[in-house]
Amino acid sequence: MSSLRATLDFLLYDWLKAERLTSHARFADHSRETFDAVLDTCERIAREKYAPFNRLVDTQEPQAVDDGQGGLKVVLPQATHDAHEAYVASGMVSAAQDYDEGGMQLPYTIEAAANGFFATASVSIGSSLLTKGNANLLMVHGTEMQKEVFARNEFAGRFTGTMCLSEPQAGSSLSDITTRATPDGDDFERDPLGARYRLKGNKMWISAGENELAENIIHLVLAKIPGPDGKLIPGTRGISLFIVPKRLVGTDGQLTGERNDVALAGLNHKLGWRGTTNTLLNFGEGKSPVRGSAGAIGYLVGKPHEGLRCMFHMMNEARIGIGMAATALGLAGYYASLDYAKNRPQGRPIGPAGKDAAKPQVRIIEHPDVKRMLLAQKAYGEGALALMLYCALLVDEQKTGTPEDAEEARLLLEVLTPIAKSWPSEFCLEANSLAIQVHGGYGYTRDFPVEQYWRDNRLNMIHEGTHGIQAADLLGRKVVMEGGKGLQLVAGRINRTLESALQRPDLAQHANDLAKALQHVGAATKAAWATGDPQAALANAVPYMQAFGHVVIAWIWLDVLLTVPDRGRTPAQVGRVQAARYFFHYELPKVPAWLKVVETRDPTCADTPEEAF
Amino acid sequence: MSSLRATLDFLLYDWLKAERLTSHARFADHSRETFDAVLDTCERIAREKYAPFNRLVDTQEPQAVDDGQGGLKVVLPQATHDAHEAYVASGMVSAAQDYDEGGMQLPYTIEAAANGFFATASVSIGSSLLTKGNANLLMVHGTEMQKEVFARNEFAGRFTGTMCLSEPQAGSSLSDITTRATPDGDDFERDPLGARYRLKGNKMWISAGENELAENIIHLVLAKIPGPDGKLIPGTRGISLFIVPKRLVGTDGQLTGERNDVALAGLNHKLGWRGTTNTLLNFGEGKSPVRGSAGAIGYLVGKPHEGLRCMFHMMNEARIGIGMAATALGLAGYYASLDYAKNRPQGRPIGPAGKDAAKPQVRIIEHPDVKRMLLAQKAYGEGALALMLYCALLVDEQKTGTPEDAEEARLLLEVLTPIAKSWPSEFCLEANSLAIQVHGGYGYTRDFPVEQYWRDNRLNMIHEGTHGIQAADLLGRKVVMEGGKGLQLVAGRINRTLESALQRPDLAQHANDLAKALQHVGAATKAAWATGDPQAALANAVPYMQAFGHVVIAWIWLDVLLTVPDRGRTPAQVGRVQAARYFFHYELPKVPAWLKVVETRDPTCADTPEEAF
Repeated sequence: MSSLRATLDFLLYDWLKAERLTSHARFADHSRETFDAVLDTCERIAREKYAPFNRLVDTQEPQAVDDGQGGLKVVLPQATHDAHEAYVASGMVSAAQDYDEGGMQLPYTIEAAANGFFATASVSIGSSLLTKGNANLLMVHGTEMQKEVFARNEFAGRFTGTMCLSEPQAGSSLSDITTRATPDGDDFERDPLGARYRLKGNKMWISAGENELAENIIHLVLAKIPGPDGKLIPGTRGISLFIVPKRLVGTDGQLTGERNDVALAGLNHKLGWRGTTNTLLNFGEGKSPVRGSAGAIGYLVGKPHEGLRCMFHMMNEARIGIGMAATALGLAGYYASLDYAKNRPQGRPIGPAGKDAAKPQVRIIEHPDVKRMLLAQKAYGEGALALMLYCALLVDEQKTGTPEDAEEARLLLEVLTPIAKSWPSEFCLEANSLAIQVHGGYGYTRDFPVEQYWRDNRLNMIHEGTHGIQAADLLGRKVVMEGGKGLQLVAGRINRTLESALQRPDLAQHANDLAKALQHVGAATKAAWATGDPQAALANAVPYMQAFGHVVIAWIWLDVLLTVPDRGRTPAQVGRVQAARYFFHYELPKVPAWLKVVETRDPTCADTPEEAF
Repeated sequence: MSSLRATLDFLLYDWLKAERLTSHARFADHSRETFDAVLDTCERIAREKYAPFNRLVDTQEPQAVDDGQGGLKVVLPQATHDAHEAYVASGMVSAAQDYDEGGMQLPYTIEAAANGFFATASVSIGSSLLTKGNANLLMVHGTEMQKEVFARNEFAGRFTGTMCLSEPQAGSSLSDITTRATPDGDDFERDPLGARYRLKGNKMWISAGENELAENIIHLVLAKIPGPDGKLIPGTRGISLFIVPKRLVGTDGQLTGERNDVALAGLNHKLGWRGTTNTLLNFGEGKSPVRGSAGAIGYLVGKPHEGLRCMFHMMNEARIGIGMAATALGLAGYYASLDYAKNRPQGRPIGPAGKDAAKPQVRIIEHPDVKRMLLAQKAYGEGALALMLYCALLVDEQKTGTPEDAEEARLLLEVLTPIAKSWPSEFCLEANSLAIQVHGGYGYTRDFPVEQYWRDNRLNMIHEGTHGIQAADLLGRKVVMEGGKGLQLVAGRINRTLESALQRPDLAQHANDLAKALQHVGAATKAAWATGDPQAALANAVPYMQAFGHVVIAWIWLDVLLTVPDRGRTPAQVGRVQAARYFFHYELPKVPAWLKVVETRDPTCADTPEEAF
């Protein structure tokens, strides 16, 4: 029986040899045993505190109620509080931090794997990823005082954190944000917490923007400091980053008792992912004036106008995190539908003489079309999981490897991150649809978990940069940057796998198919940019990303197969061979269809005039 | 601006020349004017009574409450009652019936087109299709008395109707139903309403199985009459069909005041399509014994053991009805996202020097990737709509055409119906996902209608024969039946289109691409059956159906383009050219990928042992 733990163990140790991370100085005190202890703990918390409440957080959405002070507060189910507490108590919020900081210097690879348990159990009940990302950012870009007062209290679980980027009129287009930050008094530069500003503006799509899970919420807010003419600087250059606590904090880290001028304006009611509160926040509208005037008090992080660079420092990890969530949901649906298919009797096999109705019904896993739907889910879900862990290991290489390894990891991640974010978002969503289909009518009811997985997963193509934005990033920047060095490195890694696979008669056909597809992607990349016109090159960026993603997943599967002997295979190994074969036979042949429009720079869509729709 | 009405007018009159139906004797009194009057009325009712309440019926699901008599009844929102009344009052329930029956002898083609308005406005608020199907069946297979007492009262709106096929242990596998029907007393054959039986068993997934919309509910129930040994006959041969009224009815059509032994056991709580009550019904469990004993009283329809044949008489129309619902939802999402894209400003075009942040934002319809997502929706939705109307016209040909035309229509429908049901279910669902994507984060909220379209549409791959069952029907029966005559006829129609298209330089490339794809489907059909082993042939029936479906839609688009001049085109005509081009450039190239596994009879899925998953 497939299980997430068994698959993780195989991928981490047999395939990726993750123990080799312990040769890096930072992880020297670690061993497979310490890694396993973390996985054990997270698996248990996810099983006990997350999984049983996944449906509950879907049906009992966050509620905005009167806070008794003229504003709104958010009420969450008790289960959400309990899950949050258990997560904090496990030490996972600060697991990646230095020992000196109370952390365990855990590799990101192990943390990402552990996140798989939580996301499979209940993707939306916890939102600690944001707190972690927020505090991590402050550890890199904050002052010593900001680290002490804000980041360390987030790691300790006293405060939670948010990332406030989007605005109602500027979703994907951050250059158009209009939240203003103006100096707060003549002494604004002398505040020990950082240069003090007053912020005014509205932020949209803020996850965990309001709740009572902890003492305080630390918002990291993108805003623009007006120029000398009082105008906002157009574009992303004008953006700065601020710490805006919900409740003001003293240099001792204690709450001062002052409520900041940040108001919950409303909750977004979503299709899925309902365990996580998603908010519209008004900064500085004057609802709760603070220290005598309207405007939310915020402390500058880093230098003015460098906010976006600071915010995107953690982007690779955030995007791999989304890919991991999508992957975990895909696997959750796979396990649920596999279980159903093994237990549900219905229908009979078709023989040369048709069906024999006098025979008892068989379990639906015996039908080839049900096997097809299960194998597709396995190929998508486990293929995606392998890619996520591969990328997570690159994150560790980039941070703690030798300078050469770090540089190579950086370049590989540039190219692979858009795939790691987008591919599971699309194909593990498709896996969830197949999980519904395996269940038949039951899959369409809320008595089974698969419909929720499908709804939850639909978010992943949208947040943290939409599919379209990932595609433009991949074809518009990543494969051409630094003279195409990143793309060459990815091709180099693929070729290394191909060389090994070509040695093996049982893998040679897959290797040849992949080599052809890789060559095709290379040629299409060149053809897309043949005229040098980005508008023409990028018109079909999404099909390009789909093709590229399929080639990457095929490569990952082939590389996984290098661990499988050519005879005497265990059932799990047979499963990997079959899932890979599924991917090579059923999926890889789609690549030419996607690339056709890329290499011809097909202008059909771009050329369609508005009035023709 | 696209609208459903404009598209229907074009497809019905400019493309299909639907007025030619008036040359059939049955439709002799009709004209484009009478057709248009029906469309006008339905468009208005859908706009006034359906569309405004689509979200309401999603959030206020049917509730099962105590009926005060020890059982359960269903409470529906007032809007559902109002929509039902308006639909009945319009005469649409009986529109297709003879003038003598109070009908208007409306062609099915026009009825199907009119249904598009209702399904676009609110696919689940009305469930009159079932009442119609039920009454239609009785008009064909019922006795004069059954027609009088049951069917005519359904057409008049006094009674509603259901179809009770599935059982909890037998969803797609009807041969395994266990509902028993035993003769009710020695005089059971002398009941004027039909041979009287007592039914015992549980029926699952019964739409509109309980409600208070009308005076009574007429269930059509599949059940097995035990053989002389008291055992149920295995397989579908043993199945008979019964009328089981919720409340007993006299020969005068009036309620006798007796409640039948049919009990609502529960409601299914679904992912979508929530306006339609879906029930689990217990027949004859003795909760409300009738005429002194337990067992639901039912009247045999047609001969014993011919129940399935009777029930499937209307199958083509029912399946085209599902395809139409899926199509309508696809178009609803297209219109919503088109409207959004035309009004939402965000981002800027990318030029050779990147983006100029000083310029104002553009509306998102100006971005090529958004155009791609809109054009895909248009190509899917309008292509599917054209196929639905094409098939609906074949239904009319089959019923009212010359014997030769009728026979040709019958065979064409055998092959095209599985496509008409499955293709929109899959690709108009994909269209709805694109509609969400166009909206970005807003599309993921319940403040916009697109997430509901996507949820509602997910049902269509499941009910009325799952995707897998349609595929097995297509490749296992329809393309090989009667010596492959149906397939040859479809190919003949496609070739007729190709001949005309090849005359036109602007269409010749499309024609060549389609000719190649058609040939490929033919070759793959042969290859799939090369060994004569159905298990091998059908292992990849779903990819076969996907490929076949794409070829059919490409053909339909090419045929539509024959109406478009090669110059001096209107915006609407440009739109058709671009949507067709999208389909030929972006979609048709996927056909070889799907057919590859078909023609090699790829055994990967079937060969995967259970323990390998």
